[in-house]
Amino acid sequence: METMRSKHAGFCFGVKRAVDRVMKEIGNGKGTVYTLGPIIHNPQMVTMLKEKGIVPVDELHNVDEGTVVFRTHGIKKEEEEYIKKKGLESIDATCPFVKRARKYAMYLRKHGYQVVIIGDKNHPEVKSVLSYLDNDAIVLHKPCPIEARKIGVISQTTLDRDTFTGVVTGLLNGAEEVRVYDTICRSTQVRQREAAELAGLVDVMLIIGGKNSSNTTKLYKIAKKVQPKTYHIETDNDIQVDWFKGAQRVGLTGGSSTPGFIIDLVDRRVKNL
Amino acid sequence: METMRSKHAGFCFGVKRAVDRVMKEIGNGKGTVYTLGPIIHNPQMVTMLKEKGIVPVDELHNVDEGTVVFRTHGIKKEEEEYIKKKGLESIDATCPFVKRARKYAMYLRKHGYQVVIIGDKNHPEVKSVLSYLDNDAIVLHKPCPIEARKIGVISQTTLDRDTFTGVVTGLLNGAEEVRVYDTICRSTQVRQREAAELAGLVDVMLIIGGKNSSNTTKLYKIAKKVQPKTYHIETDNDIQVDWFKGAQRVGLTGGSSTPGFIIDLVDRRVKNL
Repeated sequence: METMRSKHAGFCFGVKRAVDRVMKEIGNGKGTVYTLGPIIHNPQMVTMLKEKGIVPVDELHNVDEGTVVFRTHGIKKEEEEYIKKKGLESIDATCPFVKRARKYAMYLRKHGYQVVIIGDKNHPEVKSVLSYLDNDAIVLHKPCPIEARKIGVISQTTLDRDTFTGVVTGLLNGAEEVRVYDTICRSTQVRQREAAELAGLVDVMLIIGGKNSSNTTKLYKIAKKVQPKTYHIETDNDIQVDWFKGAQRVGLTGGSSTPGFIIDLVDRRVKNL
Repeated sequence: METMRSKHAGFCFGVKRAVDRVMKEIGNGKGTVYTLGPIIHNPQMVTMLKEKGIVPVDELHNVDEGTVVFRTHGIKKEEEEYIKKKGLESIDATCPFVKRARKYAMYLRKHGYQVVIIGDKNHPEVKSVLSYLDNDAIVLHKPCPIEARKIGVISQTTLDRDTFTGVVTGLLNGAEEVRVYDTICRSTQVRQREAAELAGLVDVMLIIGGKNSSNTTKLYKIAKKVQPKTYHIETDNDIQVDWFKGAQRVGLTGGSSTPGFIIDLVDRRVKNL
């Protein structure tokens, strides 16, 4: 089987930066290294880090020592305050683009705008931004009119452009001012465009990455619209041989939290089918 | 024939204010009263004012005395400067909503935004705003992407909402920030909604007002989509009897620059058909 890979597949800048930082802490002699939630949305990478001694915890209340790493998606304001109060060591591995979105949201709120976050209210990135706004924002994932004189908009960094445009358009009917910061990260946009393009060139498309990864799931949805034979897999173990009946070319891409070595494993496995 | 009239038809706040101001100047003993261009886009009203001694001029170079009235659509920056330099008396009858749009545009330009004016580049309102921006703005009437990091948007006050939403949506793909001031005036919006509603209830729809009136022409286009038997007339003299064959109910509305007495004349004429 022939494989074609997206130019940009696997770790983006923010994820690479976060993984590098946490790797550097292994064996730093300053006690246990904790991450608050999975540092990135890739179960295989999180397991690998666990094996090296990095401990993901769901909440901080039992952490009394060591170093806490802030995950790529950012942490909550109250968690940051807790870490400071406890005097714990910390490493901020929040993606700079996520921080920029948060900064814009806080600026808008400070200047009297009704803040709207376009995204998934259950995604840790959105929850983090909300906490820094003292939950004073509206999260939208579908077009919905809002009654406010001044509306300020930011987006989850991994959102797809169609959702973004649709929601903003829905806000244009009523407010005197709508101020929109386009905080979809460039890496997300490039990957989405490339996934759609590649899906149009192949017989089967594989999207590789965590099932809990927002950006990977969006790549899957985008590619699926172009090539119905698109499958979302976490590793080469998820591959089913009958997907490839009559296929000649298989497209591969991975989310921004998908380690390169997993994409390589899938690539080799597909070539040998 | 039965007639039905829009709740809001004829002079809006800004036009009424302008006409009242200029009427007050008639015979003020301070020389000729000039308007720069037609004070409002209604030829009948302009003729009536002419008969009372108000002189519309296309340019100022021959005006050496008297009072200059700034039309509802605003005047150009260089014209305002000329009036000051010449020491002429002036009365500012610019619609306050037009002035608000201009103020926002100037604010946006001052703060580093690429200003986009959504509207008709040949309309005097847009020309006036442009002059106060030293022509440093892009006028769009159809969706078109713009390359800029920060885009600031205002609208011609008499624009229809679909054009506004369409153009803004087209700007959402690329800029880091898009800041939109919705400067379509409420009066325009109400009239447009009422025109569409009324057009759906009648057999023939008459839109009354200047052929050079932007907001009247838009009412015509909007009503025409709902009721194909929609006609744009300036006065009762434009009425053609064969439009009403088999009709029972006739809808009437007028633009914001249409004098009430002209709508009354049309109403009476249609009732007697």
